[in-house]
Amino acid sequence: MKVYADNAATTRMSEKAIRDMLFHLNNTYGNPSSLHSTGQRAQEALSQARRKIATVLNCYPDEIIFTSGGSEADNQAILSAAEIGKKKGKKHIISTAFEHHAILHTLDRLKAEGFDITLLPVGEKGLISPQQVADAIREDTCLVSVMYANNEIGTVQPISEIGAVCREKGVLFHTDAVQVAGHLHIDVKAQNIDMLSMAGHKFHGPKGVGLLYARRGIKITPLIDGGSQEKGKRAGTENIPAIAAMATALVEANENIDAYIEKVSALRDRLIAGLSEIPHSVLNGDPVNRLPGNVNFCFEGIEGESMLLLLDDKGVSASSGSACTSGSLDPSHVLLAIGRPHEIAHGSLRLTLSEDNTEEEVDYLIRTVKETVEYLRKMSPVWRKLESGQQEFIIK
Amino acid sequence: MKVYADNAATTRMSEKAIRDMLFHLNNTYGNPSSLHSTGQRAQEALSQARRKIATVLNCYPDEIIFTSGGSEADNQAILSAAEIGKKKGKKHIISTAFEHHAILHTLDRLKAEGFDITLLPVGEKGLISPQQVADAIREDTCLVSVMYANNEIGTVQPISEIGAVCREKGVLFHTDAVQVAGHLHIDVKAQNIDMLSMAGHKFHGPKGVGLLYARRGIKITPLIDGGSQEKGKRAGTENIPAIAAMATALVEANENIDAYIEKVSALRDRLIAGLSEIPHSVLNGDPVNRLPGNVNFCFEGIEGESMLLLLDDKGVSASSGSACTSGSLDPSHVLLAIGRPHEIAHGSLRLTLSEDNTEEEVDYLIRTVKETVEYLRKMSPVWRKLESGQQEFIIK
Repeated sequence: MKVYADNAATTRMSEKAIRDMLFHLNNTYGNPSSLHSTGQRAQEALSQARRKIATVLNCYPDEIIFTSGGSEADNQAILSAAEIGKKKGKKHIISTAFEHHAILHTLDRLKAEGFDITLLPVGEKGLISPQQVADAIREDTCLVSVMYANNEIGTVQPISEIGAVCREKGVLFHTDAVQVAGHLHIDVKAQNIDMLSMAGHKFHGPKGVGLLYARRGIKITPLIDGGSQEKGKRAGTENIPAIAAMATALVEANENIDAYIEKVSALRDRLIAGLSEIPHSVLNGDPVNRLPGNVNFCFEGIEGESMLLLLDDKGVSASSGSACTSGSLDPSHVLLAIGRPHEIAHGSLRLTLSEDNTEEEVDYLIRTVKETVEYLRKMSPVWRKLESGQQEFIIK
Repeated sequence: MKVYADNAATTRMSEKAIRDMLFHLNNTYGNPSSLHSTGQRAQEALSQARRKIATVLNCYPDEIIFTSGGSEADNQAILSAAEIGKKKGKKHIISTAFEHHAILHTLDRLKAEGFDITLLPVGEKGLISPQQVADAIREDTCLVSVMYANNEIGTVQPISEIGAVCREKGVLFHTDAVQVAGHLHIDVKAQNIDMLSMAGHKFHGPKGVGLLYARRGIKITPLIDGGSQEKGKRAGTENIPAIAAMATALVEANENIDAYIEKVSALRDRLIAGLSEIPHSVLNGDPVNRLPGNVNFCFEGIEGESMLLLLDDKGVSASSGSACTSGSLDPSHVLLAIGRPHEIAHGSLRLTLSEDNTEEEVDYLIRTVKETVEYLRKMSPVWRKLESGQQEFIIK
């Protein structure tokens, strides 16, 4: 059996999105900046995609800036807010300890430029409270950036409430919604969101495309400078086929979102229940405030990467944490942030489901992960020490 | 008749590139950073594309950083060189007055940060001499950036010689080759190029993808920060379908490049000869050192945008200058740089051909442009003044 359970890393494109993309690859090749009708057809496709997405997010079309993906949108949001802050002498930014590196590394840069960065601790469940944000806001705070849902452990933050706190205090609020768009309802107006990032390939759209929503009136600095595309906020010939396909995928996901949430949450809970039976295992993240498709466990006494390779042999595509840092030998900064010790964080497994997965697949995942954990533990010197009592279990 | 003559703005994708892209959209959806085989297949597609392109450019695969396009590559090249320069106390950059805005706007930013920018004058033909570059280099010069060929008037610079001057003086040399890749031979080693930018959609590849070549040993700063993709030089999930299709399109273009140059140069020269018959017209750029497909004229007494709309009615997709700035009412900075007065620069027409164009199409272009110029002049109050001798012709 083949089970793709790494949908947080990237998703398979929907047939509808591929069809739409292919149509535009073949037909809408004009440059939207050109005055002739070949260009204007491309311009119309661009406007249509923008309108479709604006309807889903509940914003104005001109509040959407198309980017090459979520990382670019994250970088641009943070740097724009910093630019605005700097002009007002406000150089304090609040974020969380377990953001995506597109946020954290950008904040590191700003720190080097003299910004003061507060990374809120996220607690064992990986949740941020609006009160934490309220307490951290200072006179010189120019931005709060809290990810809508964590890419590794799937915890969903109380975004509306955090947004309300920021709105009340007059501080810009950005959320990295890369894992949320197409998976949960988003309403930027109702949720008090000033800026939001998303990426097409996380909801069955194409790679290489994403967007930054920025509320009217927020001065966005171009990260890529040059031509006057996207009203001067993002240079470069617009990638019409990908933008159109992203819009199609987002609309498609949103039309089916309630059924998606119900179906995939049920699969997730079945998987969590099954894996919880493994002794000395622990679920990472909050069991309730959790992305529909996210399952993340630590298993004591084993090493995540070996598990991935064995699972792959059995047809299972899974992950130990974020794909973006998989080259690294360091344990996940997310798992460390929720207080997992190094030795446990190394034994993590992330399985992320989509609506394409089935109950049969989930049962196969449970069986296969159980067998793999058992197998690896048998060979593990650490496990022998734990079993014989020479070393104490961390996960009881 | 329908004639697409705006190939400098963007090209129609080749069938082979579309086929390749579709294959990867359907099959290679994994995240190349993932350890499982779905991800590793994507990683293999990425490596293969990198090797193919490296072979064409004559560089090492690890000297290629995939970006979202030419503008991003240009921005990153300039900012990286500035970063390197800053560390050595070298804050002088040499470029030309008619670079693409992706270069000029980035240089404006650096100027605001205290860099000293020399923009070399380009002369009436739009050519830069290696001697000009040699004369401008100072002790504190950290970068020379000269575009390989101009996007509006098509002049091709003596890149190897400029590169040699820079190499000799120990100054980094970047060239914006967005208009050249797939159209002329490139050999970064033989041509002494340290950094080079290109974009897939200018040679029948997809939009939303490009690359920065950077010679080994040059420290490239990420423009988009986050995950460790592209060896930490460019964050964001790699856009495999587009990268693979760009590689396919580049290889395809390069396999046929000599025949392309011969065929398209002949079409270009036929078109130039035909349009030269229009009284009070002038070719912009150098007639010899010129991109195979580029034709750019100024016609006295008329206004470029009206011409484009009338041509469009007759099935001709053309441009007055760069597509990237077509929203602007200012005359082209390129035409001003080669000394065209404002009133002439406004009456410009760029026709850019590809191997898909035919002699019949070129003859249609000649006929249609002639008719359109005549028609517009008949209605033009400026033209009446010129004809009646009340005002003097600028183009004799």
